[in-house]
Amino acid sequence: MSEHKASVLVVGGGSVGAIAALNIESSGRTAVTIVCRSNFQIVRDGGYSIESCDHGSLRGWRPSDVVNKVPRVVDGAHFDFVICVTKNVADVPPSVSDLIGPAVTPGKTTIVLIQNGLNIEKPLLAAFPQNIVLSGVSLIGANEAEPGFIQQDFPDTLYVGPFRNANLAPADEKLAAEDFVSMYSAGGKTQCSYNADVGWTRWRKLVYNACLNPVCAITGLDTGRLRLADGAIEGLVRPAMAEIIAAAKASGYELPETIATDMIEMDPLTMYLPPSMLSDVRKGNFIEYENILGEPLREGEKLGVPMPTLSVLYHLCQAIQWKNKELKGLVNVPPKGTFVA
Amino acid sequence: MSEHKASVLVVGGGSVGAIAALNIESSGRTAVTIVCRSNFQIVRDGGYSIESCDHGSLRGWRPSDVVNKVPRVVDGAHFDFVICVTKNVADVPPSVSDLIGPAVTPGKTTIVLIQNGLNIEKPLLAAFPQNIVLSGVSLIGANEAEPGFIQQDFPDTLYVGPFRNANLAPADEKLAAEDFVSMYSAGGKTQCSYNADVGWTRWRKLVYNACLNPVCAITGLDTGRLRLADGAIEGLVRPAMAEIIAAAKASGYELPETIATDMIEMDPLTMYLPPSMLSDVRKGNFIEYENILGEPLREGEKLGVPMPTLSVLYHLCQAIQWKNKELKGLVNVPPKGTFVA
Repeated sequence: MSEHKASVLVVGGGSVGAIAALNIESSGRTAVTIVCRSNFQIVRDGGYSIESCDHGSLRGWRPSDVVNKVPRVVDGAHFDFVICVTKNVADVPPSVSDLIGPAVTPGKTTIVLIQNGLNIEKPLLAAFPQNIVLSGVSLIGANEAEPGFIQQDFPDTLYVGPFRNANLAPADEKLAAEDFVSMYSAGGKTQCSYNADVGWTRWRKLVYNACLNPVCAITGLDTGRLRLADGAIEGLVRPAMAEIIAAAKASGYELPETIATDMIEMDPLTMYLPPSMLSDVRKGNFIEYENILGEPLREGEKLGVPMPTLSVLYHLCQAIQWKNKELKGLVNVPPKGTFVA
Repeated sequence: MSEHKASVLVVGGGSVGAIAALNIESSGRTAVTIVCRSNFQIVRDGGYSIESCDHGSLRGWRPSDVVNKVPRVVDGAHFDFVICVTKNVADVPPSVSDLIGPAVTPGKTTIVLIQNGLNIEKPLLAAFPQNIVLSGVSLIGANEAEPGFIQQDFPDTLYVGPFRNANLAPADEKLAAEDFVSMYSAGGKTQCSYNADVGWTRWRKLVYNACLNPVCAITGLDTGRLRLADGAIEGLVRPAMAEIIAAAKASGYELPETIATDMIEMDPLTMYLPPSMLSDVRKGNFIEYENILGEPLREGEKLGVPMPTLSVLYHLCQAIQWKNKELKGLVNVPPKGTFVA
């Protein structure tokens, strides 16, 4: 552990980032700088308003520093941890590596990815081969109801463990993960635990994310309505989940027998909760379909697992993303009536 | 052929129905009664305005009679033909049989279904076992831009042939179909031809309808944009079409080798045309997914053809239809926060 007060950068000032910053700063061990975008002005001037099942009511809470872009580290300073809680939209620039790059000091900064999906560490390990990269899998239920106003309805449970970096010693990676867990838990308001088997945890969460997320996003139905709708669970969700479970198994991860039912019944039906991908579609945001759907699909297919359901869901998400790219001017659509060879 | 001036009922007063009524009444052989719904008042009072590649510009055109519900035949009168051009939404009442029932005289009325999909004759043959039922497959390009205002951009080409009714003589069915073709073509403004192999024609059209229709409806992309979007044709449309072609083959219908490409390239790309199912989604209408997707899926699966792509598309359409049923109050969704066993 470093002797100076650890220096932490949280990249992403939405609900998950705000609660992460709050947990870490509550430890008393750290100074947290948070990078906000759309809510920067509001958070810098007035702080966050937080209604939280873990932290109670807070008004005007602000971490040590609020900035509106990832700072470039200079003059021998460095961040001990750069925690990335942004959406990870692999098919839309900037990449996570490019985004956090200015704040990462080679060999010194531990990178923590509190993000969904598979293989998200690969571009980071390629860009920062001398840095420890940690996996954070979060089960928090929180949203930013208005800019700067965070509602947390479901406790923050965070599983943290190292993504294996072949250039580094496993013991150092483990130490960094334990250091992070200790810091994140020190305030005593949350459950953050060390997670040795990052792959298992990520595949497990994909049973929900790679299946319920796209089906809800594509159909426009929340998880409660999906359970009421004719044939959606048996015709879509269970076949998709069976494919993920088979791909996980082929990758060496045996998931519990009840996992599909557990995930289907996880959200209380009449809460009518929209999974994150449906929320993103409703807000006109890009969706994280490459990491949470494309990567497990490619892994499974590489291992010879038939993935017909996921393949269709993947390509539908790709088309829906393309439609949004057109709206945002990122793809070229020839004018009506022009000749296209 | 009947000696009296043939009496024809057209059920459905939208674009296809209006053009059908115009073609038939132009023959001079018939009196057409048309059943209008949303545009009834406008059509009865002022007639149709028609801009048509086949018929030119017409203002205030009206068939012999305009009514707002299917008339009940009484006192020995009967319709020689009842032509149904409504949407055929199999999972939402009323059924086509119930809709046209009051106007059908057993053993006398020839029923003509100018509607998409497979097995649409089955409920009709069950309800009217002594009646001839004809298949009409239309390749018209027409829409009702405003109530009563019909735009026809693409010629009306109609293929008509008998659905086999085991209770009747094939020769009588053929005669009725030829009678219809002759009447429909007599005005000289359209191409209507006798089609002996109704099954082949319907499966052929399904290569477009069962594949491009749902993919466009689900993604919100028209056929032009679908061709521009990353991976949509290769990842969705061609796999779906291959399944339809295989199911057609297993059903005894060999489609041309170029059929998939022909159908993909049928709509000019930069016309950005929405298939009917996408138009229905945009208008908040129910979609005809059971007949154009569900029936070929069930036929193919019955014959042992793997249909994984169509199965996913089918269940997604089913969920989207359910969402619309909720909006229209046809399904029960428990209030938020209530307990559901």
